[in-house]
Amino acid sequence: MKRRDFFGAAALMGAALSTGKFASAQTTEETDKRDIARLRLCSQLGGIPGGTLPEKLEKLKKWGGEAFEVGAEVTDDAKCKEYNKMKADFDLEVSAICWGSCGGQLVSTDPAVQAAGMDEFKRVLEGAGKVGARGVIHVPTFNGQSELSNQELLERCRDYLPKLGEFAVAHNTTIILEPLCRYETYFIKQVAYGASICRDCGGREAGITVMGDFYHMDSEETSDMGAFISAGDYLNHVHLAGGRAEPMRTLPGQNGMSFVDGFRGLKYIGYTGFCSFECGCEGDREVEMPKSMQFLRDQWDLA
Amino acid sequence: MKRRDFFGAAALMGAALSTGKFASAQTTEETDKRDIARLRLCSQLGGIPGGTLPEKLEKLKKWGGEAFEVGAEVTDDAKCKEYNKMKADFDLEVSAICWGSCGGQLVSTDPAVQAAGMDEFKRVLEGAGKVGARGVIHVPTFNGQSELSNQELLERCRDYLPKLGEFAVAHNTTIILEPLCRYETYFIKQVAYGASICRDCGGREAGITVMGDFYHMDSEETSDMGAFISAGDYLNHVHLAGGRAEPMRTLPGQNGMSFVDGFRGLKYIGYTGFCSFECGCEGDREVEMPKSMQFLRDQWDLA
Repeated sequence: MKRRDFFGAAALMGAALSTGKFASAQTTEETDKRDIARLRLCSQLGGIPGGTLPEKLEKLKKWGGEAFEVGAEVTDDAKCKEYNKMKADFDLEVSAICWGSCGGQLVSTDPAVQAAGMDEFKRVLEGAGKVGARGVIHVPTFNGQSELSNQELLERCRDYLPKLGEFAVAHNTTIILEPLCRYETYFIKQVAYGASICRDCGGREAGITVMGDFYHMDSEETSDMGAFISAGDYLNHVHLAGGRAEPMRTLPGQNGMSFVDGFRGLKYIGYTGFCSFECGCEGDREVEMPKSMQFLRDQWDLA
Repeated sequence: MKRRDFFGAAALMGAALSTGKFASAQTTEETDKRDIARLRLCSQLGGIPGGTLPEKLEKLKKWGGEAFEVGAEVTDDAKCKEYNKMKADFDLEVSAICWGSCGGQLVSTDPAVQAAGMDEFKRVLEGAGKVGARGVIHVPTFNGQSELSNQELLERCRDYLPKLGEFAVAHNTTIILEPLCRYETYFIKQVAYGASICRDCGGREAGITVMGDFYHMDSEETSDMGAFISAGDYLNHVHLAGGRAEPMRTLPGQNGMSFVDGFRGLKYIGYTGFCSFECGCEGDREVEMPKSMQFLRDQWDLA
């Protein structure tokens, strides 16, 4: 589970330290994986201009998008069928289900409330499996939804996440923990912390993964590159938005924030998941969205 | 204060995105600084074999050490004079003062207790200045020393750290926040979190820096490299010890833990601070300590 590379027992003896085997095991394990990394753009449906779903997806595809991100409506079988038809019609994937905290029910100390939250989460995970989504985005608690301390929240997460993770894996999907900035949560604020919870809960094989959102990261991370390297193999989704400079949380390229440092991190870990727009827009989305996609490709090239 | 690189207003216009100026500003800002990074070994005095201070320092110097780490005894002027003589005699630096939490007094809700902690911290900072130490290692609270929530602790830190940081700067030194593993604190457990608190408090210019301890990082970090990149310019000290594999927290090289990933991070950020032994030892320190130093140099070369 740990990415930390241990050297074999033989290497514990001083004599073995300079052998080629030891050196090569060390140097090949964790090196730069930029050769396999790809920028795969995606958007939440609400962010794509167009009156109907096919109109939106046709544009997204034309502009180079590879996937779309949907919501909890995947608990509706008819919606899943519609999304699956759209996936086939436009040769797109469903990246993730943008869900949330379910009102903080998952960390509730009331067993009945927590059980209801677990059931709801399971329904969404089932739907995620039906549309082939890589995971369901989850926030244990937003500010104002819980009175628990960080230690108590962590304890609860370590209890319910593995159970739901097992359910997710059985439905060919995962749980994606989303770290938020201080203005939205006091609990999981940094990507590295989300990643450490993933590891504690069994990681990707146990259905527990993490994401990074550039908007939140702007407030909480001192280095987007460091954050994504810490996420490593646990990283399963990325949200794209400008940071808190005005215009706040807008389309990448519209508020001056660079994505290069973060993209260097994504390249380093060989990220091949999706980067999905979750942001506002200054001006006409029809014009601005493809411009932002080109901006991001330019930033990727610079990284 | 933020390492995040912003591009100029001109670059906000699509036309400017492909200009050489924009590209070069982006690609030179955050790149690998491994050319300037150096492994500068150091040790706490207790970890060096020898009956007297000169005996210890003679050995440390002979083995390639560049500095020694001392404790709160720098509040004693005679001690400072002795250390300064030793620095000159052996051409060594004093890296840092290993202090701590002062029993959790700094985060106490009792104003008199907190004031006493502030006074004590100031005395140690003064001493640190006298011996030319780069900083005083500080832990806001160990487990069991405070009942406050993480939010409350964070609020207190944001209040007292800038005040003491200003005092530190006036004495040519800094405060070094030390993240600890879960078994020792529930508050600052990850290097990236410590770094974010540094940034919130004004960073290095305001006298607030962070460190990483490989022993604690083994439990809390999913990537030592990511952690150190997140620390970036806020990183001011490193503690060396094996992780929790048995023999736990021992000399590097004695319990199988690799330092390569972490050293890659130190190289990336161009770290030129000290890496100081704070660990136990299996066997004879006289034999094992120089062996461990060579092990670390080999790991550095592999990074």
